[in-house]
Amino acid sequence: PQAGDLDEKLIQDFMGQVESARIRENLRVLASRPHLATTPGDKALVQLLRQRWQDPQTGLDGVAEGTYDVFLSFPDPTHPNSVSICPPVLNGSRLFEARRSEKVLTPDQAQEDVVPPYAAYAPSGSPQGRLVYAHQGTRSDYETLVGLGLDLNGTIAIVRYGGAGRATKAVVGAEFGVAGLVVYTDPKDINDGRAGENDTYPNSWHLPPSGVERGSYTESFGDLLTPYYPAKEFTYRIKESEIQGIPPIPTQPIGFEDARTLICSLAGPEAPAAWQGALGCTYCIGPGFRMDGQFPSSSEVQVSVYNQRVIEKSANVMGFIRGSQEPDRYVLYGNHRDSWVHGAVDPGSGTAVMLEITRVLGKMLKEGTWRPRRSIIFGSWGAEEFGLIGSTEYTEEFSSKLQARSVAYINVDISVFANATLRGQGTPPAQSVIFTAAKQVPAPGSGTGSVYDNWRHHTNRSSPTYGVIPSLGSLGAGSDYASFIHYLGITSMDLAYTYDRSQTSARIYPAYHTAFDTFDYTDRFIDPGFTSHQAVARTAGNVLLRLADSLVLPLNVSDYGEALEGLYSVAAEGQVQADLAAHNISLAPLKAAINRFKAVATDFNQRLMKLKEESSPNPLEVRMVNDQIMLLERAFLDPRAFPSKYYYSHVLWTPRAAGVPTFPGLAEAHAARDWDAIRKHLSIATQAVESAASTLETPA
Amino acid sequence: PQAGDLDEKLIQDFMGQVESARIRENLRVLASRPHLATTPGDKALVQLLRQRWQDPQTGLDGVAEGTYDVFLSFPDPTHPNSVSICPPVLNGSRLFEARRSEKVLTPDQAQEDVVPPYAAYAPSGSPQGRLVYAHQGTRSDYETLVGLGLDLNGTIAIVRYGGAGRATKAVVGAEFGVAGLVVYTDPKDINDGRAGENDTYPNSWHLPPSGVERGSYTESFGDLLTPYYPAKEFTYRIKESEIQGIPPIPTQPIGFEDARTLICSLAGPEAPAAWQGALGCTYCIGPGFRMDGQFPSSSEVQVSVYNQRVIEKSANVMGFIRGSQEPDRYVLYGNHRDSWVHGAVDPGSGTAVMLEITRVLGKMLKEGTWRPRRSIIFGSWGAEEFGLIGSTEYTEEFSSKLQARSVAYINVDISVFANATLRGQGTPPAQSVIFTAAKQVPAPGSGTGSVYDNWRHHTNRSSPTYGVIPSLGSLGAGSDYASFIHYLGITSMDLAYTYDRSQTSARIYPAYHTAFDTFDYTDRFIDPGFTSHQAVARTAGNVLLRLADSLVLPLNVSDYGEALEGLYSVAAEGQVQADLAAHNISLAPLKAAINRFKAVATDFNQRLMKLKEESSPNPLEVRMVNDQIMLLERAFLDPRAFPSKYYYSHVLWTPRAAGVPTFPGLAEAHAARDWDAIRKHLSIATQAVESAASTLETPA
Ligand SMILES: [Ca+2]
Ligand SMILES: [Ca+2]
Ligand SMILES: [Zn+2]
Ligand SMILES: [Zn+2]
Ligand SMILES: [Zn+2]
Ligand SMILES: [Zn+2]
Repeated sequence: PQAGDLDEKLIQDFMGQVESARIRENLRVLASRPHLATTPGDKALVQLLRQRWQDPQTGLDGVAEGTYDVFLSFPDPTHPNSVSICPPVLNGSRLFEARRSEKVLTPDQAQEDVVPPYAAYAPSGSPQGRLVYAHQGTRSDYETLVGLGLDLNGTIAIVRYGGAGRATKAVVGAEFGVAGLVVYTDPKDINDGRAGENDTYPNSWHLPPSGVERGSYTESFGDLLTPYYPAKEFTYRIKESEIQGIPPIPTQPIGFEDARTLICSLAGPEAPAAWQGALGCTYCIGPGFRMDGQFPSSSEVQVSVYNQRVIEKSANVMGFIRGSQEPDRYVLYGNHRDSWVHGAVDPGSGTAVMLEITRVLGKMLKEGTWRPRRSIIFGSWGAEEFGLIGSTEYTEEFSSKLQARSVAYINVDISVFANATLRGQGTPPAQSVIFTAAKQVPAPGSGTGSVYDNWRHHTNRSSPTYGVIPSLGSLGAGSDYASFIHYLGITSMDLAYTYDRSQTSARIYPAYHTAFDTFDYTDRFIDPGFTSHQAVARTAGNVLLRLADSLVLPLNVSDYGEALEGLYSVAAEGQVQADLAAHNISLAPLKAAINRFKAVATDFNQRLMKLKEESSPNPLEVRMVNDQIMLLERAFLDPRAFPSKYYYSHVLWTPRAAGVPTFPGLAEAHAARDWDAIRKHLSIATQAVESAASTLETPA
Repeated sequence: PQAGDLDEKLIQDFMGQVESARIRENLRVLASRPHLATTPGDKALVQLLRQRWQDPQTGLDGVAEGTYDVFLSFPDPTHPNSVSICPPVLNGSRLFEARRSEKVLTPDQAQEDVVPPYAAYAPSGSPQGRLVYAHQGTRSDYETLVGLGLDLNGTIAIVRYGGAGRATKAVVGAEFGVAGLVVYTDPKDINDGRAGENDTYPNSWHLPPSGVERGSYTESFGDLLTPYYPAKEFTYRIKESEIQGIPPIPTQPIGFEDARTLICSLAGPEAPAAWQGALGCTYCIGPGFRMDGQFPSSSEVQVSVYNQRVIEKSANVMGFIRGSQEPDRYVLYGNHRDSWVHGAVDPGSGTAVMLEITRVLGKMLKEGTWRPRRSIIFGSWGAEEFGLIGSTEYTEEFSSKLQARSVAYINVDISVFANATLRGQGTPPAQSVIFTAAKQVPAPGSGTGSVYDNWRHHTNRSSPTYGVIPSLGSLGAGSDYASFIHYLGITSMDLAYTYDRSQTSARIYPAYHTAFDTFDYTDRFIDPGFTSHQAVARTAGNVLLRLADSLVLPLNVSDYGEALEGLYSVAAEGQVQADLAAHNISLAPLKAAINRFKAVATDFNQRLMKLKEESSPNPLEVRMVNDQIMLLERAFLDPRAFPSKYYYSHVLWTPRAAGVPTFPGLAEAHAARDWDAIRKHLSIATQAVESAASTLETPA
């Protein structure tokens, strides 16, 4: 190895020291009580993190707390939200009322501070109206109802999770005149159809009938009152009325047991086949209840919401390891700390892994056997569940130095959804380092292959460059990597163990965001033995060490060339290509830019190869190529590409509403059949690729 | 000196080799024919630049041409623009017509390709109406006329240069109903009152009666069809109708001889005392002509404009010197190449200096006696006169790598306005290096002091840190530094020799943008002997060498602390402070941020001092502090601070329309008495200062 390069033996040492039993014990402590953002349980974990990272034997170099005054939404403890059926002649009584909290199935649900199910940021109010079933509450779902002759004005809609973002169901519903929204989880979507008590937790990993998915009902992320600026005391705040993308109508989630009572009583025509679910009846669309049903047909449903919007102080806990050679280069690793209830899986499984990684690294550090070449920053983010708030405010506060100094961001939120295979998401430069690490970690469970082999077995694609390889997913806005990649253009990745999709079609693990996401649930059903947790800790820690210690950054810029070709090929074929041709719009400049990028990246890698062969390369020369690698991702940012989408500046990975997997600006403009916008976005994409190519050329 | 640090002897060598005679000869060649952007004269200079920078004995390492398809405006060679007086009964004849070109006073004005006077980007049209005199065409000037009872609808306004930007006179005039605009230069503003032929060029430096200032009539800069994107073939262009800030009404500039004919014949009340000028009559406001004057009183004035808008290929010529140690750090030096006519002073005086600097450096390079530590990039920008187009497109094309790698940008446009004193403009970090250089250059002319001493004598201020020092001006958008500082946040500076303000109150040197800005004019009146040119070349070259060769960058971050205090103190006193207090708006967070910045900068400089004492400091440690210095300016950028102002992202130096010299967002919001906007801009400024402070802290 070159002088000052990564020590492979150290990586093996690190992986050998990662203990599944310690991860399990971390999780037991982390999930011992509810820790909703800014509540006492959350504050206790702030102290736990601080203490772990300050431990004299296994702590880091330093710890800091970054606090922000963030806009949150909680139910009113004295006025419970409700979903109920009122009698045709109102007399204050109720014909039915949905549960206000989940059933106590293990002692956890009876603990203090279990927040009742609610839709965060939904406004207060008590609308009442005839019930309709609107499937997933997408625009096309509401349009279908209108097409079937329903007048949605003043109705209460019941919709199921999936298909559209939480807030969107309410935002779009309100456009159609819906006055109140009820949201539930269909057993078809979460339990592979199972709905009985015997089939569900605590008897299996499936969602019990009373379980309710809580969630933040927001279309954008970050503190809603301070877009682009950290929510400090001095920070200017927009008016609440200026917030975009939160429900305009009272909204409340319920369990599927109660949803069954509502949906199975509906009148009206049968819902389309695709709208049917696993509640054990034929779903009708309403409006109102059946003549022969449990409730008088003219009964109305009332949604009563008493949520309170407040500004609370939320903390990020940051842990630091100072780099020996390049202290001004940061490898970032983070996960949120807050949960909806106990959050054993979300985010405890990730935090338990992070704490085991920091324990092993801290030990090496305190023993004096290791100090990374670059600095490492660990983040325990606050208020993620309300919309990635802690991480977003952090990127806002330190945007300038983070953009200048950050090599990559590693996110491990839920570390284990299930035991089947690694799920890696990231931008193309992350692929090489994740693959290298995954090849060195034995897959958990039976068999002898590596995490990499197992991953390739489960989820693969055919790469023109490498043949059949695991398929690296792209990054949406599902966790705290969002502001790092989309706003700051820092190469980011997210790692977890996940499902065998041939075994389940569940939207997500069934206890997600419910009071059943507990240590017991994890210990018995998600990862008994914690070997998947261990595999994720080894893989993520391996990636972290490679990024921190390698003389030349282990991010392969050439892999961006293949990704660009992939995005391009979708535009250059089929309907998109035909439509472009019909409007005389040429893809040639974009193609030329991609070809240039590929050629320049190949040259760059050749120069790199030579540099790697030198026994003691010039430190400034190494720094130069590393800066080119590090800053490549930044060159794809264009803060003016998507002016209406907060934080989304990455020309390639901004989420597309449109289904066509090509350049997002092009995809959306094409879906809107806006030929002028297509021209504009092709120009934007071409310039981004040209700019990226120019950063990889010899600097002088 | 430290290993690898700047060689002071080399700087002395460099300065010793700078020859005034060669600068004079450069200028003679550069100004030998007109070279309006993209015309044959401009193309010939492209070849000249290429040839000089490729010279085997005195050339650079490399030359490149960057071309852009830019939106320009030229008069129609077959339909001359005109300003005329029509008889009351229209019969096609004219009672008077303004000159269509300047008088031939030296052979230069008779050369091919002397573009007739025009207002670039003014639309075509031939409005006719009664004449009014509207002083400088500011909003308050037009309001004054309305206040005096004038109906401006359908009038032709004559206004003089000064007080407002060229385009603004027309944009605002059109709002008041003005149908056509005539612009002239008053001898009071340009000639210290002198207006006779004997008192003017070729008999003195003063503007002859037929001289007309040409100019770009635009409120923003950069190619007007491609804001934020380089004007390449593939680039999306906005519609011409979407361009903001160009004249909505036909507009034509004329000389003061013709303006006298128009203004001295006006009817109506006397114009206010401050509106009077040096045309030798009492200025009345109109409308229309006097009963007892030269023209029938109901005669109307017609402005006929036939300008053509075209897209032409414009080139930047770039010259490169590869850095030996840090090739990926750029010191940029530039000037525009295009002129309105011969452009001896503007920009020839600057280009003549640049060519002498590159000759001396090229010689040292080719002789093998020198190679800079960092790379140097020279830019000969195209189409500056139309709105800083070449430099802006360059910053757009390479924004990503320029922001990551640029140490500073040095601009020398007009290098000598006059012989009295240096004029330095720049952001605070530039102050230290300019001062160091200026102290080493003997002042031209009599006396024994340095350029620095002479500068301090002419223009000084009292610094709390340094006592009485030369006053460094701030950067507006007057030349090609604009996109470097305002858009990319690269520390920038502009250097020139200029007037003794006790001797003249001329707006600018009198031949500016006229056909009299010739070699002869420069040689006889601006800088006989070219010693001021030589002093600027030595100063600018000295600055350039210090930036390129110093081990630690010679930019003092602490000087930003003093600048912040200066901006703050204006907000914290007088009417601004009183208004803020009355609206319960606190400056405390901003003050706290500034205090933190100052403390952090002091600590930073102390660490720097220690590093400078080490005999062979760690190269990566030096690089680290240099990156902090280089990127400090970037931390003051906020692309969302001024969303309506193209390219203006610098929270501190964005030009203010308001007169109060404090933080620009605050100043403008205060002028508008918009308390919410004040809160917002205080928050923006506070965050920018906090962000800047955090970049100067120890990185880990
Ligand atoms: Ca914020
Ligand atoms: Ca442009
Ligand atoms: Zn999570
Ligand atoms: Zn979650
Ligand atoms: Zn100029
Ligand atoms: Zn000019």
